[in-house]
Parts: sequence; C-alpha cells; structure tokens
Amino acid sequence: MSEMFKPSGVITITTDFGHRGPFVGTMKGVVLDRYPDAKIVDLTHEAYVHWPAEAGFWLERSFRYFPVGTVHLAVVDPGVGTDRSVLLVVGAGHVFLAPDNGLLAGVIDAIDATVIKVEEHQIARFALESVSATFHGRDIFAPLAGELASGKLSPEALGSPTRDYIPSLIEPPEYRGGELHGVVITTDNFGNLFTNIDGPALAAFQRPMVRAGGHDIALRRTYADVSPGDLLALLNSYGVVEIARAEQSAAELLGLGRGAPVVVIEGG
Amino acid sequence: MSEMFKPSGVITITTDFGHRGPFVGTMKGVVLDRYPDAKIVDLTHEAYVHWPAEAGFWLERSFRYFPVGTVHLAVVDPGVGTDRSVLLVVGAGHVFLAPDNGLLAGVIDAIDATVIKVEEHQIARFALESVSATFHGRDIFAPLAGELASGKLSPEALGSPTRDYIPSLIEPPEYRGGELHGVVITTDNFGNLFTNIDGPALAAFQRPMVRAGGHDIALRRTYADVSPGDLLALLNSYGVVEIARAEQSAAELLGLGRGAPVVVIEGG
Amino acid sequence: MSEMFKPSGVITITTDFGHRGPFVGTMKGVVLDRYPDAKIVDLTHEAYVHWPAEAGFWLERSFRYFPVGTVHLAVVDPGVGTDRSVLLVVGAGHVFLAPDNGLLAGVIDAIDATVIKVEEHQIARFALESVSATFHGRDIFAPLAGELASGKLSPEALGSPTRDYIPSLIEPPEYRGGELHGVVITTDNFGNLFTNIDGPALAAFQRPMVRAGGHDIALRRTYADVSPGDLLALLNSYGVVEIARAEQSAAELLGLGRGAPVVVIEGG
Repeated sequence: MSEMFKPSGVITITTDFGHRGPFVGTMKGVVLDRYPDAKIVDLTHEAYVHWPAEAGFWLERSFRYFPVGTVHLAVVDPGVGTDRSVLLVVGAGHVFLAPDNGLLAGVIDAIDATVIKVEEHQIARFALESVSATFHGRDIFAPLAGELASGKLSPEALGSPTRDYIPSLIEPPEYRGGELHGVVITTDNFGNLFTNIDGPALAAFQRPMVRAGGHDIALRRTYADVSPGDLLALLNSYGVVEIARAEQSAAELLGLGRGAPVVVIEGG
Repeated sequence: MSEMFKPSGVITITTDFGHRGPFVGTMKGVVLDRYPDAKIVDLTHEAYVHWPAEAGFWLERSFRYFPVGTVHLAVVDPGVGTDRSVLLVVGAGHVFLAPDNGLLAGVIDAIDATVIKVEEHQIARFALESVSATFHGRDIFAPLAGELASGKLSPEALGSPTRDYIPSLIEPPEYRGGELHGVVITTDNFGNLFTNIDGPALAAFQRPMVRAGGHDIALRRTYADVSPGDLLALLNSYGVVEIARAEQSAAELLGLGRGAPVVVIEGG
Repeated sequence: MSEMFKPSGVITITTDFGHRGPFVGTMKGVVLDRYPDAKIVDLTHEAYVHWPAEAGFWLERSFRYFPVGTVHLAVVDPGVGTDRSVLLVVGAGHVFLAPDNGLLAGVIDAIDATVIKVEEHQIARFALESVSATFHGRDIFAPLAGELASGKLSPEALGSPTRDYIPSLIEPPEYRGGELHGVVITTDNFGNLFTNIDGPALAAFQRPMVRAGGHDIALRRTYADVSPGDLLALLNSYGVVEIARAEQSAAELLGLGRGAPVVVIEGG
C-alpha cells in the first residue's frame, strides 16, 4: 500500500469525447477488467475538444468533492501517439492521470503535489497488450487507472518525482492599472460564463465590479437576487467569478464564450 | 431503520444541468463520500432548464421502474439560494428529494405520500461544511440523498409531515364541450411528443382521436402500425398520450413542442 | 451455471435514445430490480436513430474491451411491438441481446457465435408484468439482461440455436477493378470518419491510399503525423480505416457523413 495514496475505489473520467460512439464506454470496460469493483464517475465528456485547459480547470475545481483516495483520469490528448509523456500527480490524497500537455498544471499548482512521469517500461507493463496510436485513453490510461484504484499498483512504483512538465496553456489573471484582467474559460448549460478569476484575487477590491461584453455587472450572492433577464456576477460554487443572467443565458445576451476578456474593476 | 422507507442503496438523479461541466459528477462524488456503496443512476440531465414541470413529469412516470427503497433526487432549481424549502416526499416505498417549487407535486398526487419540509437545522447538520448560494444540488441535496440511501438517516428525522407545498406549474387536462384539452410536456430523441393526458382520461371517449397541429390523428398500438412517415397517436409506455411519426419526427413535421395544445376528440 | 457463459456482472447498454427523458435510466432501474449488483456501463445512446447498423458496428468493435462474462444489451428497434424476434447471441464468453433486425449480424460474423431466438413463453416469463407495445428495451430486454448477468438465468434456457436471423443492413466493402469500395459508417465528436473497411482488407494493397470527398489521402500512424488542419487516414484504434484531420473536423471539411463512399486505391 502506498504511503501517498490509499485508494477509495472511485475513478473519475474527464474527456473531450462527447457521447457519440463507444469511446468512454470501452475505457470503462478496460477499467472493470482490471478492477471489477471500480466505482466510475463521469466528470464530463464535453470538455472543449483538443484544448486541455477546460478539462484541467474543472478537475482542479472539482476533485475535492470526491472521496479521498479517488483516481482522476483526464484525457484531452491532441498529441496521442507522439512521444508526449503520461503524467501522474499525487496530492491531497488523490491521484491524477493525464497526458503531459498542461492539463494538470492547475491541479499541481493547487495542491502540494508530487509529479511523476510514468516510465515507458511501466506503461508497457500495464497497458493493453496491443496499444493503438490513437486511443491511449483506453489502451494506456484506463488500465493504469484501474490498477491504481484497485490498490494493486502504487503511484510511486510508476516513476520518480520530477519538476519537468508542461505548464498551463492559460495565463493566470493579471493586475494592470488597478484592474484585474482574466478570461472566460467555459460556459454551462444555462449560459453562465465561468472565468479564471478566483475569490482570493478579488481581495484587492473594495467593491468589485465585473466588466464584460460592454456591461459593468455588480457582484451578487445568487441568481434570484436580480430580476429574471437581468445580468449579475457572483463568486460561484466552484470559487471563481461567474457572469450569469437570472433564468436566462448570459452567454447569449453578451455574445461571449471561451477566451473572452473579463475585467474586475473598482466599483463606484 | 425507518418504518416508512427501507433503502435499496439506489439513488436516481434528475437535473437540468446537461452534460457540460462537472455539475452532476461532483454531486455523485459527494454522494459516494457519504455512502460509498451507493448505486447511482442518471434519470436525465436534459430536463428543460428552469422549468421543474418536465423533471417532475418524468419522475412521476418513472419511479416505479426502480427498486423499492430508491432515493430520487431531482434538482431543477431556479430559486437556489433563496428561502425556498427542501422537500422530502415518502411514498410507495420510495423517497424523493427536490426543491419545493412544484417539481414533486405530480409525484405527491400519484401516491399516498408523506410530505416533509426538511428543517433548516437538519439541512445544516447534513450539508457540506461550506454551502454555496448557487449549487444546493451538490452542497445540500447530494449529502442528504447519500445519508438517506445509506440507511443512516431516516426520512422522518428530517421534519414533520406538512400539507403546505408549492403546487404543480402545469394544469391538468380539462374537459370542455366533450373535448379533453391537454398540452405537450416534452419531446424525445425521436421527435415523439409526450402529453399530460393519461390513460384513464381517455375513458370518456368511445373512439378517441388526437387533434394537434391541425391534424386529427388516430390512436394506434405501436409505431409500425402505420407506414414510415405517417403520423400516429398512442397511449405510450409511460401511460400518457404520445404523438409520433413512424421512423421520423412528429415534432418537426407538426412544428410542435413544449406547451403546444393537444385535444382529444370523439372520433367519427 | 451455463456452460457457454459465466457472468461477470457487467452489462453494457447501447441505444438510439439520446439523453433526453428517462428512457435509459428506467432500463437501468429494471436491471437493478432484477440484479442489484449489476455494473452497468453505457456504450453509447447516440447511435443513429432507427438504423441498427451503427449500434451493431460499435458493439462488434467494442465488446472485447469488456470483461469476459459481460451482457451487451443493444436497443435500436424501429420494429418494437411487431412480431420481430428477440435475438440472443453467445460467443467469445460474452452475451448479446438485441432485436432481430440486423443489429447483431456483424457480431455474429466476428465470433464463433451461438444464435438463439428467445422463445415467446420465455419472454413472457421474464418480462415486466405489463409489457408496453413501444418500449421493449425497458419491458423485455432489461429484465432479460438483469437475469442473465445475475447468473440466475442461462442463455441456453431461452431457446434453441438457430441460423435464421436478419442479416446486416450494410454490405461489406467490395473489390472492383483493383479498388476497394466501402462506406462511412459514422463520425465522432472530433469529426473523424469511421468506415467499414478493416485492416485485413488493406492487405491487398502495396501502398493503400484513401479516396474520399475528392481527396486522395495517405495512411498515417497518428493525428500528429500531419500538420494541424491537414487530412490523414489511418487504421484506427477499432481496427477500421478512419479519415481524420489533425486538430480539426474531417467531416466538416469534406462534407461527408454516414453512407458516403470511401475507396481504397493503390498509391503511386
């Protein structure tokens, strides 16, 4: 049993595969083949394709809601089949597995993490017998996740700690001239906009206002604090600034989405 | 152990969250943290947003297909973070948890139900340590569901029976001039239209015909009873009148959707 | 215990139901009612509606990634409620249940399979008490899957082996004038095109090139072997020829989808 990690049996899966085709399902089949008692939870499979940043953002913001001992597997992997590494991150009692492409950079920053590049011979040892060049989620990551979640395999057996990994693709928010400049990372099913500006970053402001899409928007506590159709901002349930519109879509009204600039200013 | 409820370990989740983002996934994480052996089933996460009626309709029509002892958690919650209550309904051996916004009104009507408003101090006792103002599905409902499904918490411990709860947002069908006037509640992936007119309501007719979108449509037994492309109506597998089109989309042909009027008339 | 099949407790479900409504969820409820320890995995619910070929294609290509002893339930069933049979296929240690409409023809061809038409009295014995005319997935297939996965029911108890079943709706690829003519079966979330041309079929070519949508496309090993935006073809992770576009959508660029002709030619 690892000193670093005592598995709960829970595995989360995060991908950009969507729900068409058997891609996520076959990953789960491989996990169950390695570890029949795995409890597999889908985090999301509708992360932006080919862009590891959103998947990493959600993983960083979500993992603490899972039992200590959870294995979090995330596959947004435009470099599949190249020599990009397989990253294993251990910290806060959780394990994270993903391609080394910046996806896990936010998680690493958020916790006292040990970062391991999984050694090639360990990959070969645990991967499926036949490894494709285009679906390592199924052929490499799923078997590793199953073995780790079962407790048969310790994270430290897979390689030595390193500090050499790909950084995040998104810059943190930046203070400039008394303003804080961030971006929209993603939207949700309601048209709410999620930014990369977190709670502590707001401490620099007396009365923070959020400027986006030509609107100056006051911070509120919850959606029903304004009338249906009105814009609001709030420090949301994942700890970041969210721009919303009561009972309607802020994304649609503002015409904003991923990458759109969001500025926090001092309110009047 | 409750007199009213013996848990099966199964929990269903119904939301309007869609599949983007980690919202449903983190609810499951919280459930598993409280009750590691929970068997969690998604009912649907594509209920119409901000409209509790569809989620409640499906829950009422679906719950009997789950084992007695199931906890059904439904979160369509435009009033999250306000003083709206948390409703617990117990009946037919099942437990239902949802915001008190009309979502559970149909379930309550359908069974010999005990209705409980969960007391504030019980919410505080079982909720996550830090409760957000915008995601009670994760912070309040999921922990309660986990505790109830585990058997550690009895429904009757959470409050006293009441008759004071928000009624359904949709009117039941109405007889007027020998006709029965109902509405479309929702559509499915095939473009079939589901109405709020149930089987017993048809007993008033000798030869019921369904009038919708300018068409008079005969009741059939199954889709293949008409030629591909033809319209039909039927008393469907959830006990309500459905308007369909063999191998094609009735919703598209008729240009109808949620809220569209549907009238049952006496056939010629 | 069956000679033919030792259940692992895993059940996969493949449908064309999408994610709106409680259709897949209630199937799972029925399974859990029959077999509380079932481990249910969604293969996909976004198979093309009313077209059993795609669901069958994915099942044939995916089943080996699940533990031996898995029950695979697939419901794309335009003939529901008619006298079409219920097919049970046993082979390679797996069991498959589906309507007899061609869905399982590819699976049958791929393995040394025993094919059984489930006898009507056995359907009546295991089905839900009240069987609808429009949702056999829930009322007939789910209970059968639960009983088979639990080990309480042996496949051979359900009927005698037969060779009489509906063939596949799609023709296999055809050699004509030194070229191999196949079709696109489906696309994925990235816009990759999956064809019905498999690896062994390419053995006839020295340097196979893939012709589709007016482009002649060379076979590569993985997506990153070409520059972002460039087309490539590859023998993919499910063993068939795939047409892709690095970090972008081949389907969109080529304007191709299900049924589009794809030809393998001898390269220059």
